[in-house]
Amino acid sequence: MLTHLPTLQLLVRHLQRVPYLASKNIYRVADYFLKSEQQSLEQFCQVLLDAKKQIKACTVCYNWAERGDLCAVCASSRRDTKLICVVETWLDLIAIEKAGGYNGLYHVLGGALCPLDGIGPAQLTIVQLLERLENHQGELIFATNPTPEGEATASYISSKLKNSNLSISRLASGVPTGSSLEQMDRITIHKALSGRRPF
Amino acid sequence: MLTHLPTLQLLVRHLQRVPYLASKNIYRVADYFLKSEQQSLEQFCQVLLDAKKQIKACTVCYNWAERGDLCAVCASSRRDTKLICVVETWLDLIAIEKAGGYNGLYHVLGGALCPLDGIGPAQLTIVQLLERLENHQGELIFATNPTPEGEATASYISSKLKNSNLSISRLASGVPTGSSLEQMDRITIHKALSGRRPF
Repeated sequence: MLTHLPTLQLLVRHLQRVPYLASKNIYRVADYFLKSEQQSLEQFCQVLLDAKKQIKACTVCYNWAERGDLCAVCASSRRDTKLICVVETWLDLIAIEKAGGYNGLYHVLGGALCPLDGIGPAQLTIVQLLERLENHQGELIFATNPTPEGEATASYISSKLKNSNLSISRLASGVPTGSSLEQMDRITIHKALSGRRPF
Repeated sequence: MLTHLPTLQLLVRHLQRVPYLASKNIYRVADYFLKSEQQSLEQFCQVLLDAKKQIKACTVCYNWAERGDLCAVCASSRRDTKLICVVETWLDLIAIEKAGGYNGLYHVLGGALCPLDGIGPAQLTIVQLLERLENHQGELIFATNPTPEGEATASYISSKLKNSNLSISRLASGVPTGSSLEQMDRITIHKALSGRRPF
């Protein structure tokens, strides 16, 4: 059917590049856009291009920033500048901010080391982090994901910081709140046991 | 966090209107667009606006059409013009075309009657279908979904066709191929029994 609709085919191909648009729903999304008002579609495109133009990476921590070089966290005077929390992505930063309770700064790596996918230190903001830490006194918290890639990234960065005076910590690994031990995997239980704390 | 990023907030609000972009993934999609190249984002917008401009509803059957007033089905000379299959949406039409074996024409209603959602006959292409059928000889196949709304829509249209000479049929309702009877709901089994066919 789509061979008769080259423009629609092109739209579907472009939509397929957007992550999390399940391919089963791709025609529904195309249908939604075609049924939208011309005006609201133009507005959607405008919003998209405006966002691209106005939202840049923070020059210090690589969080998204608007209207200035610094993101809201780095620009805030109420943050504890002694703490730097290293996260893989902006999405992780949001998760920590939403959880509340953390009042320090961040560093967004832009991903985790994954040689098989061609992601080496140069593809992330690791050099920028090391530069930033040269004159830093305080604590560095690794909040990379508890995956092989996330652990490797934390190990790599900490190996570069051997000679620094920073206090380096890692997010606790263990059984998540509300979960059942029965359902947990072996490694999580191992880590929860070895990381047990006085009651 | 987003209160410091009004442009990003606006983008997220616009993305949330797109169906099937699960709200859990909405930040990932926003992140994807922000990380895209300026050029590919402009291209995406161009494709979207081009599609909107060039793809219109077929003037006969309301299927999507490009480069002309008629869709590929209506414009084809190889179709059996005596058969008209009534579907709710373009997506249903695609499903039937993909299944193959049907060689007639279509009529896309644009949805099903649903008074609670404010969808009456005027919101669908029912009047246009009745006009189209005035001079039509042949068979009308209802392929609206086997839901209360789909059934009501088929009933409503057939009630308007009482005095016509059309042969009217309905897609068979029963147990789908590859399913297990044990898992089927009561109504499906009832319908499969009452619609049983000689072996």
